[in-house]
Amino acid sequence: MRVAIVGATGLVGRTMLTVLEERAFPVTCVHLLASPRSAGERIVWKNETYTVEPLSEPLPSVDVALFSAGGSVSKEWAPRFAATGAVVIDNSSYWRMDPDVPLVVPEVNPSDALLHKGIIANPNCSTIQLVVALKPLHEAFGLKRVIVSTYQSVSGAGQKGVDQLQAELAGSTPTARISPHPLAYNAVFHTIEAQHGDSEEEIKMQRETRRILHLDNLAIAVTCVRVPVLGGHAESVVIETERPITPALAAHVLSHAPGIILEDDPANHSYPTPQRVADSDAVHVGRLRADSSAKNGLMLWVVANNLRKGAATNAVQIAELLQ
Amino acid sequence: MRVAIVGATGLVGRTMLTVLEERAFPVTCVHLLASPRSAGERIVWKNETYTVEPLSEPLPSVDVALFSAGGSVSKEWAPRFAATGAVVIDNSSYWRMDPDVPLVVPEVNPSDALLHKGIIANPNCSTIQLVVALKPLHEAFGLKRVIVSTYQSVSGAGQKGVDQLQAELAGSTPTARISPHPLAYNAVFHTIEAQHGDSEEEIKMQRETRRILHLDNLAIAVTCVRVPVLGGHAESVVIETERPITPALAAHVLSHAPGIILEDDPANHSYPTPQRVADSDAVHVGRLRADSSAKNGLMLWVVANNLRKGAATNAVQIAELLQ
Repeated sequence: MRVAIVGATGLVGRTMLTVLEERAFPVTCVHLLASPRSAGERIVWKNETYTVEPLSEPLPSVDVALFSAGGSVSKEWAPRFAATGAVVIDNSSYWRMDPDVPLVVPEVNPSDALLHKGIIANPNCSTIQLVVALKPLHEAFGLKRVIVSTYQSVSGAGQKGVDQLQAELAGSTPTARISPHPLAYNAVFHTIEAQHGDSEEEIKMQRETRRILHLDNLAIAVTCVRVPVLGGHAESVVIETERPITPALAAHVLSHAPGIILEDDPANHSYPTPQRVADSDAVHVGRLRADSSAKNGLMLWVVANNLRKGAATNAVQIAELLQ
Repeated sequence: MRVAIVGATGLVGRTMLTVLEERAFPVTCVHLLASPRSAGERIVWKNETYTVEPLSEPLPSVDVALFSAGGSVSKEWAPRFAATGAVVIDNSSYWRMDPDVPLVVPEVNPSDALLHKGIIANPNCSTIQLVVALKPLHEAFGLKRVIVSTYQSVSGAGQKGVDQLQAELAGSTPTARISPHPLAYNAVFHTIEAQHGDSEEEIKMQRETRRILHLDNLAIAVTCVRVPVLGGHAESVVIETERPITPALAAHVLSHAPGIILEDDPANHSYPTPQRVADSDAVHVGRLRADSSAKNGLMLWVVANNLRKGAATNAVQIAELLQ
């Protein structure tokens, strides 16, 4: 397949190249595209050196265009790529709630991808790992309510987030910032929308989780927090289910579910952490505990690499569905 | 009053000295005590140099003994100090669930302190900031259920936690560890008890919260997480109440409650963070949001300095109740 990567110089774009190679995606030719500012950079992939091309007409003829270049680029250029006959898999939030654009996590709702009209949206990183863990639990026990607090790495905001944290830890002044608060030794929120008090990230997690699970009225409470972690998002999740649930039953279900690695021997320090998932494409689940504060309550800890399963890997898995 | 500090060389012991001076506690003489290993160290307080004495018989005659030297020291030495007529205010977990030992947060249950028989327990750091925020909400709306996920700093484990994080961030090997997992760029759990899957910290928060609020059957779900923060604990809290609650009503109640500073203008980036509470003795609350996933649901974000309000300040406030 002919593949274009739009936003090839960013953290997610580079990870897409890595994942395409690791998963032996059948790439026949690749076009690396970016904003005019980043065009001209050279990127080595599979022992060949590519020069990043500026995103401009005429577009290259490709079968799949993987976008990770921000909402405004996706708004303008995804329909243009789709018009050439390519299928766009877009990592920005721009198309995610468009009813004509499927929002897909291959372990959860793969058949939605087949309904595409040229654009498929890749969900928010925190949403992807949450729904991979929730889907098998919903099928087995019936989800009634989800309460989640996140521990998100700064790479969720791209290279700029990594740069701000590393500059602050080195005692220097960051050249650009993703937050007016310090990131080093701190816990901060994403940009918060004035009208209802939720952050953009919190709104995305609520809406996208409902859409991907096809549970329009799922009760869900979300608090999204950035912590001084470079890569890997963790989530403290509390669920209530229709039917009785126990840690042992949940462990049985999760250990047979696609895309999940269960690591749950906490008395021996075995549980997932952001550092442990650095090279993983899976969603790691641990600390299954009964929640006695609710009828049919369960607590769990969900960790994934936000650049891989939370972005690049999920996008490549969607492309695999199209083969 | 004559004051002894047992564990004077530790992070909390040193903060106790700072807080005694800041609050102008009427100290007539002070004895600084520590394990034989730390005895002999010199500490300057109020322009006088004190030599740290080894904890041994005969004990100095004091009115108040502030302990922060670990559970085994408290077990052995708190009753001995109490036998001399001193009142022990103990920061370890050893006496906290003893029915003969009051567990006190002065803003929440000050009159419990009067029932002491020589020992008063200072609660767990994460518990203190939680109950200061919950008490006024309980009085106004009636607490039914509490779900909390913490973002705790490494200084909660004392100097050893700070040393491990700083060594790892500097790329060197820590000389001692509080966790077999890396703390730098990570999110980890406290030591987990094999028999039921909760960590010691999670068990403390459940039991102590119920005891301090005098709500023996309070439904409470707790997940405690350490993040790469040096000082300051944050908590993502979701509550359900008996009576209707709104963010505006909760803000009104909290803004008139003792020991609380409300910072809740998140669209202008105004909310508490661990870094912002570095010099504060208050419990800072922000991000009051309606939780539409439950009847009478509210979300809030609670931050305090774990060495001050979470330990030293609360202990000195208890001592003030005894005057």
